[in-house]
Amino acid sequence: MAGTDSTRPHKLGGPTIILIEPQLAENIGTAARAMLNCGLTELRLVRPKADHLSERTAAVSCGADIVLQGAKVYDTTRAAIEDLTYVYATTARGRDMVKTVVTPKQAAKEMVEYESQEQKCGFLFGRERTGLENEDIVLADKLLRVPLNPAFCSLNLAQAVLLIGYEWYQAKDNTPETRIVYAGHKPAPKSLLFNFFDRLEGMLDETGFFHIDEKKPHMVGKIRNMFERMELMEFEVHTLHGILTAITKAPHKKTHITD
Amino acid sequence: MAGTDSTRPHKLGGPTIILIEPQLAENIGTAARAMLNCGLTELRLVRPKADHLSERTAAVSCGADIVLQGAKVYDTTRAAIEDLTYVYATTARGRDMVKTVVTPKQAAKEMVEYESQEQKCGFLFGRERTGLENEDIVLADKLLRVPLNPAFCSLNLAQAVLLIGYEWYQAKDNTPETRIVYAGHKPAPKSLLFNFFDRLEGMLDETGFFHIDEKKPHMVGKIRNMFERMELMEFEVHTLHGILTAITKAPHKKTHITD
Repeated sequence: MAGTDSTRPHKLGGPTIILIEPQLAENIGTAARAMLNCGLTELRLVRPKADHLSERTAAVSCGADIVLQGAKVYDTTRAAIEDLTYVYATTARGRDMVKTVVTPKQAAKEMVEYESQEQKCGFLFGRERTGLENEDIVLADKLLRVPLNPAFCSLNLAQAVLLIGYEWYQAKDNTPETRIVYAGHKPAPKSLLFNFFDRLEGMLDETGFFHIDEKKPHMVGKIRNMFERMELMEFEVHTLHGILTAITKAPHKKTHITD
Repeated sequence: MAGTDSTRPHKLGGPTIILIEPQLAENIGTAARAMLNCGLTELRLVRPKADHLSERTAAVSCGADIVLQGAKVYDTTRAAIEDLTYVYATTARGRDMVKTVVTPKQAAKEMVEYESQEQKCGFLFGRERTGLENEDIVLADKLLRVPLNPAFCSLNLAQAVLLIGYEWYQAKDNTPETRIVYAGHKPAPKSLLFNFFDRLEGMLDETGFFHIDEKKPHMVGKIRNMFERMELMEFEVHTLHGILTAITKAPHKKTHITD
């Protein structure tokens, strides 16, 4: 989706993303893009099989240079996480290991709490085809598993990174779940709406629309209810008046300036 | 992430995904994969610029054939959505349009409610570079905007599809947010743990570890607390006993079978 505003400052911080033996430049680049989408910038690579500073990686990152150029490379998972306090291992598979499993939403809540305690956290992601090895998983505090279609739950690496980052961003974000965007317009006060109702109902009266008197209040209610639900702006009430004026012009044909 | 279990049935259904003029086979394929990850199967394409049945698309979809082969192609957005009742337009940009904007989480809640009322819903996604045109947006009931890093909020098309599908799946899913996986093992009853404490504290007593008598209860409390927090399995208590036995063997050197 389009819409990045490069004049606005990056909101940065958050957990570290650790990719173990990523095989493809595309995946490193798209993971970097997904990270920056969510305000994450700290990327670590353990024995990467592709160059995270290649042109290909930069191209697919769509400008997430701050992530790629700051990425650090390590020989071992142990070295990559030793300055962290809490580490989650992302895996879709069951393991013969006794471990606490959390959802991304739960991990995100814990992340926010750890951050408030000034503890550094990270997420381990395994190789594209095979996932994390047990020797990496045992270094983690918890497993993170994304609830998904059990018959098709293998996520692309960057998609998995995105879901973690997304939940982390949502856990800190305070965007209202639903809101109306006025786009510079003013919502219509009731008086404008009542005025429109009076005109419309008057016109309908004249045409005999309310031919059964006792049903009129019910019909009026239905009509008012439709328009109330539109949550109209001032300019939109004027547009409705314009429509009434236009469609009541007789005869019903195009009027030309030369008429 | 690895882990798809192809023997398990697909959980299917959910809202329709409508891609308008997708340019790249890669994006159609990865969008199809993301859809099936979330149990979504109904894909519609309006004037696609790439072939959704090409080998390239199939390859990047990683087996989401059911989505690609069932996809329908339309000439207009209007034709693509006319059998739907509620349509959301996904856009990161502000628009000069009075419209309700919801988050993916909110849209997912509404989706589940609409589904329970047997109403068909869909999400419109625009072109990779430019997003949705206003003429498409006005056909939608609401805008959907993903709260993301405002300085870098341009999502890859398949990533945007994933987030919608992800929230839809979560809204219906009842996976506990946190749980411990026993992996076939049995958690240790307190009796096993108390028995271990008795042995450990007895050994420490003998070595003079608790050399200040009045501090002993406090030290014992600290030690017990550490081990309580481990939420041990039965076999793990046995492993701890084995460790105690091993490290108390004198002299502290490797013992060989030939000794």
